[in-house]
Amino acid sequence: MPEVLSAEARKVLQDEVTTLGNEIRVLKEQKTSPDLVKEKVAKMLELKKKLGEEQKPGKFVIKCPKGTRDYGPKEMAVREAVFGTIIESFKRHGAETIDTPVFELRDVLLSKYGEEGGKLVYNLEDQGGELLSMRYDLTVPFARYLAMNKISNIKRYHIAKVYRRDQPVMTRGRYREFYQCDFDIAGEYEKMLPEAECLKIVDEVLNKLDVGNFYIKVNHRVILDAMMSVSGVPKQQFKTVCSSIDKLDKEPWEKVEKELIDEKGLTKEVTQQLRRFVLFREEATDLDDIQTLDKMMEIEALRTNADFKKGTEELKVLFNFLSLYGVTSARFEPSLARGLDYYTGVIYEAVVEPSEEVRKTIAEGAAKENQDSGEASIEGQGLPTGVGSVAAGGRYDELVKGFSGKKDSVPCCGVSFGIERLFAIREAQLKCKDVPMRTVATEVYVASAQKNLLEERMKLCRSLWDSGVRTEMAYKRNPKLLDQIQNCEAKQIPLMLIVGERELQEGVVKLRYIKTREEQDIPLATLVESIREALLKA
Amino acid sequence: MPEVLSAEARKVLQDEVTTLGNEIRVLKEQKTSPDLVKEKVAKMLELKKKLGEEQKPGKFVIKCPKGTRDYGPKEMAVREAVFGTIIESFKRHGAETIDTPVFELRDVLLSKYGEEGGKLVYNLEDQGGELLSMRYDLTVPFARYLAMNKISNIKRYHIAKVYRRDQPVMTRGRYREFYQCDFDIAGEYEKMLPEAECLKIVDEVLNKLDVGNFYIKVNHRVILDAMMSVSGVPKQQFKTVCSSIDKLDKEPWEKVEKELIDEKGLTKEVTQQLRRFVLFREEATDLDDIQTLDKMMEIEALRTNADFKKGTEELKVLFNFLSLYGVTSARFEPSLARGLDYYTGVIYEAVVEPSEEVRKTIAEGAAKENQDSGEASIEGQGLPTGVGSVAAGGRYDELVKGFSGKKDSVPCCGVSFGIERLFAIREAQLKCKDVPMRTVATEVYVASAQKNLLEERMKLCRSLWDSGVRTEMAYKRNPKLLDQIQNCEAKQIPLMLIVGERELQEGVVKLRYIKTREEQDIPLATLVESIREALLKA
Repeated sequence: MPEVLSAEARKVLQDEVTTLGNEIRVLKEQKTSPDLVKEKVAKMLELKKKLGEEQKPGKFVIKCPKGTRDYGPKEMAVREAVFGTIIESFKRHGAETIDTPVFELRDVLLSKYGEEGGKLVYNLEDQGGELLSMRYDLTVPFARYLAMNKISNIKRYHIAKVYRRDQPVMTRGRYREFYQCDFDIAGEYEKMLPEAECLKIVDEVLNKLDVGNFYIKVNHRVILDAMMSVSGVPKQQFKTVCSSIDKLDKEPWEKVEKELIDEKGLTKEVTQQLRRFVLFREEATDLDDIQTLDKMMEIEALRTNADFKKGTEELKVLFNFLSLYGVTSARFEPSLARGLDYYTGVIYEAVVEPSEEVRKTIAEGAAKENQDSGEASIEGQGLPTGVGSVAAGGRYDELVKGFSGKKDSVPCCGVSFGIERLFAIREAQLKCKDVPMRTVATEVYVASAQKNLLEERMKLCRSLWDSGVRTEMAYKRNPKLLDQIQNCEAKQIPLMLIVGERELQEGVVKLRYIKTREEQDIPLATLVESIREALLKA
Repeated sequence: MPEVLSAEARKVLQDEVTTLGNEIRVLKEQKTSPDLVKEKVAKMLELKKKLGEEQKPGKFVIKCPKGTRDYGPKEMAVREAVFGTIIESFKRHGAETIDTPVFELRDVLLSKYGEEGGKLVYNLEDQGGELLSMRYDLTVPFARYLAMNKISNIKRYHIAKVYRRDQPVMTRGRYREFYQCDFDIAGEYEKMLPEAECLKIVDEVLNKLDVGNFYIKVNHRVILDAMMSVSGVPKQQFKTVCSSIDKLDKEPWEKVEKELIDEKGLTKEVTQQLRRFVLFREEATDLDDIQTLDKMMEIEALRTNADFKKGTEELKVLFNFLSLYGVTSARFEPSLARGLDYYTGVIYEAVVEPSEEVRKTIAEGAAKENQDSGEASIEGQGLPTGVGSVAAGGRYDELVKGFSGKKDSVPCCGVSFGIERLFAIREAQLKCKDVPMRTVATEVYVASAQKNLLEERMKLCRSLWDSGVRTEMAYKRNPKLLDQIQNCEAKQIPLMLIVGERELQEGVVKLRYIKTREEQDIPLATLVESIREALLKA
């Protein structure tokens, strides 16, 4: 057996690791001494290994990895209800479902997520064999699946966990492991028809989930390009300017403009032009979507831009389709600029504005969670001002081609629900309403009023299980009746069967309705039928 | 932009990597030059990195990581049906559900899986921060969850993926990423009652899934200990002898005995004693479980062994409970010796014997899959002789204590379904019966008989969606009627609505029952009601 480190020795090692970590961070920021960084990292890994090897079982901290969490039965009940609503909507629109591995060949992922995404990808250790990384989203694996299986049209949904080695902010529902619910339509189809259906689904789901007021911002990639081009932004800066504009939902124009000038090097003249376009709707609040697009068309520089014309025509078709589908929550928003590289057409993002009460409850819960886990709120503010984006997506026509290498592209369009935020809202709503959450589906609890009736309870359970009735009983030989009733009430099980010796002799068993506390004897001979009837009433 | 390697240069690098890999393997086997191994590994990683960095997007191989696979819509339909059956059984027995992160702190996992399991664990790269590994099963995360949240009783199920960096053998359904479906009962309860319910669930699920003949082998950890002790196996060798005995379901006694003598160093005298016990039922085939246990008790050495007495008494209680629950598939099997360290009481394993036709279909499918993926069958035989174990579990009373470090243990008992094998059997059964698999839930397909009716189709879809009817239509502006009918038939959608100009003028739409090809006009005013009625008939 290896020698065990003393607590002091451990402390010394741990302090050394912390110091090294800080030094490495500073060096990395300076970007001047890559070799020194390497050396210090190697040293740190060695110390960490030493610490790890020396740890006695049962002595280490028991916790979930940073940025992840367990779901207990109550959270799972909320999660399953939210998933149920979303899946029903996907199925209502004829979607199939697929699943892909949680990790992919590293090359497959890194070729698509770009530098920004690449930094946030979890890599698996090289243990001999292929180099693997955990998926960052479900879209790139979907494109890989289409290319690999030469599928050129499919309407599919995929609900699974994705991984981002991001700075977690629990108060904003930002985790390192979280679920995505994706719906995508791949295929060469009538323009704007798949987009309209994606938005119809977002509208359906958010209405059914009843998460508060919401609206869907809609923009077009080529309209963004046109606005930047016309404003005089150099083409190679479109992407970085986009990521500044994307902050407009959280920050005022002045701050974004400062960033554009100070960090991105735009001139005041260019940002002023840009402002006129991206904040167009702030000036023209009385216009509807089509009118706004028409009004922008009156601007000479935009009217004569082929991109702008194309984007505008497509959005007009889309808004017409949306009105046929009864979607009133969508709204043209020229400031929407989603970050990901792969979008080529319409883009959209749904924003929820939960009630003040719900917001407060989320903030309180998150603050408590952070406190419990010993994590400070990263952004130094603790309370979220809003929940923000709960669904987003758009058209990406070139992604599959990037994998298949073929001439023909597989045009795709989809939407992804940010499910952790929807869970957070639902949980807070239920908490506000003080609705007790059912975590089991049990219909009947089999109890006994006297001792020595274990076998009788078992026989009753067997009859009910074999007839498909959801049944449980206490696992003790002689449980107290009061305990059994309390257990049954706590789990909100609607019916209780109480076995007693007198009743057994008479060939009956006592049925108790938990809510009304009403009781009646039912004959054992017709047990299952009586229970079925009682369940309809209970 | 970095210079791109020529194909020849890549080839040279790749060959070098292969050569290094072989050298490392040899060196590792020799165990003589750890430093040289380190050096060569570092060199190999460097080359691999070079290869990775130099790869052009779209040029690399598009595949799933070794030992993993995608699930397409058809496989998902089978998977969801199997999950549905299992979840319904778990819920019928009053279980709640939980979820935990896919990776855990490395220390948490490695402290419990032991050396054997540790080798098969996927580690995440140290990217600064905690050292993480992917979970190997759902039991250790469950124990961690209980200890961390100080939960002393719960009945929960957990369905999720687990990861083993094992040599994959697709023909035997052995993957590196696969689902486990676990049901566990934690709590201090009446002896054998939780075990009996776990076995009841196995019996229910395998009956409902209709996967062919099956039986459940049952043994007891302390009975195994007693048999080894009485035979003269030294205590420190119990574990390694167990893992040899565990092979008896695949190999004849002679081979196992040879291993015990040649590799484990037992004497012929000891193995002969052992044989008498573990193969006891081969000699006494006419006895039932209780009789077998009684018969073994007649052996002086066993009768006077406290472990054997305790184990036998518990198993007798269990078999009595099982008969009350109507479980006839369980069978005492003294040769069952499950590998994992953490079992402390009753252990069990369910074995399925699918029909010859189903076995053949699985073997053919697996052989084809291996061929497609370019992988040779590892075991050099290709065809599986049987599907083997599909569910297994037992009692593990000390695992949670190992985490909580408390004096009081949280006794647990559970069962895990080996779901990939159940999928394989169901898929093969459906293939044999030639049952077409439905991958969508769509109820109505909205079609048009003439051109220029896109908007009319959209309006009909909207009405149906808004009423909760699962509906789809073609995404083309002017699809051909024949294409629409074929699409509808291929997806096995029961009803079709056909919009035509004449019908619209008359305020009706044509309803077609796909199966019978019967058609009738239904009024638009009562569209949804008519569809609901038609669905009942279709």
